[in-house]
Amino acid sequence: MPDSLDDLNRRLLAFARERDWEQFHSPKNLAMALAGECGELLEQFQWLSQAQSAQLDAVKKTAVGQEMADILIYLLRLAERLDLDLIAAVEAKIALNEQRYPVDKVRGDARRADEYRD
Amino acid sequence: MPDSLDDLNRRLLAFARERDWEQFHSPKNLAMALAGECGELLEQFQWLSQAQSAQLDAVKKTAVGQEMADILIYLLRLAERLDLDLIAAVEAKIALNEQRYPVDKVRGDARRADEYRD
Amino acid sequence: MPDSLDDLNRRLLAFARERDWEQFHSPKNLAMALAGECGELLEQFQWLSQAQSAQLDAVKKTAVGQEMADILIYLLRLAERLDLDLIAAVEAKIALNEQRYPVDKVRGDARRADEYRD
Amino acid sequence: MPDSLDDLNRRLLAFARERDWEQFHSPKNLAMALAGECGELLEQFQWLSQAQSAQLDAVKKTAVGQEMADILIYLLRLAERLDLDLIAAVEAKIALNEQRYPVDKVRGDARRADEYRD
Repeated sequence: MPDSLDDLNRRLLAFARERDWEQFHSPKNLAMALAGECGELLEQFQWLSQAQSAQLDAVKKTAVGQEMADILIYLLRLAERLDLDLIAAVEAKIALNEQRYPVDKVRGDARRADEYRD
Repeated sequence: MPDSLDDLNRRLLAFARERDWEQFHSPKNLAMALAGECGELLEQFQWLSQAQSAQLDAVKKTAVGQEMADILIYLLRLAERLDLDLIAAVEAKIALNEQRYPVDKVRGDARRADEYRD
Repeated sequence: MPDSLDDLNRRLLAFARERDWEQFHSPKNLAMALAGECGELLEQFQWLSQAQSAQLDAVKKTAVGQEMADILIYLLRLAERLDLDLIAAVEAKIALNEQRYPVDKVRGDARRADEYRD
Repeated sequence: MPDSLDDLNRRLLAFARERDWEQFHSPKNLAMALAGECGELLEQFQWLSQAQSAQLDAVKKTAVGQEMADILIYLLRLAERLDLDLIAAVEAKIALNEQRYPVDKVRGDARRADEYRD
């Protein structure tokens, strides 16, 4: 993991340990907390048009940034508990996506991968 | 952002552009896609006990890692579209959490912050 | 609960018991399963425009209906495990919403309730 | 739909129309709002053990009931906008599940349906 993510990971681990919160941080619980934060992110966007969602004012952008921070925080905590290298996982997924979605087949078409499997 | 996240960000942007998928990547849509992936992560854990969730076998761990990769991918895409510095947002959120959850008040207690506000 | 929901509830309970699945149906697990199905519902809509989402073809409408059915199934299972009257809960929430969102204050404005509290 | 759900549906539609909120209630937006409420439901359960989740005190049970009510409210609104019969969708899904999960094959085993397909 890059230095910055690694540093955040260490700070988040220390934060949990100082509060004796590791007892609550099972992977199952962290996955729920992560999804709960995604729900809060959705609430920021649910009544906006797509165009409005691309033109947030400063107050809204800060609020959205806080929800995204919460998501990354729980994602890092979950990766730490599972001893999983997030950056390597993303690199592997990008390689897989390049196979599943060849440019000449999917250009301009956002249907899901499983709809192409036939 | 650290070099690695920055590099992933550039590769994900290029991936979207080559496929002419930026037209689908409004912040609203990316927030939905992110939440959809969180739903898939939940499905990996929903019938496991907390103890089981901490002892995944290799097949399950790979599957969980793929869902976590999808979440980080959409989080990076969303940050790129909003021109938002994810690492700075996490650092700001950690500072806020240190104020909201002082160690001597919340040790061993995972109730939510708003339950302490009184 | 009305006869039909009550009947569905009984059939879902029998379905779980016949498979010895009640052991997995803690409220915590059912909440996760419910949220997982919501993630699948989001995936049906994530790349559609709002207009497209209102004009689903028959195949897509069936797929959306299946996800909505899964959501109601887990919602009924959760209500059963908590001994909670869903219809009464909705009626109470409608009454609360009528107080929180008076017509003359919120007409045409979808901001969230807590943004009005000042 | 049974009388009670039908009655709730009519009241929710009137509630939206009086506030001129139908303009925001595209199926896409309603799916997001539904998922947002599921996120709030998860937050009620995320730090509880499975046993604790089955023994909620009255205050917590009311809070959980409110989130479940919100979920059913948005599910009914979505069904109305899609002209989709929720009860019929659940009945069809139960019939499908009876085929996919035969009692003698899945008793006591909660793995997902697609793990049995081989």
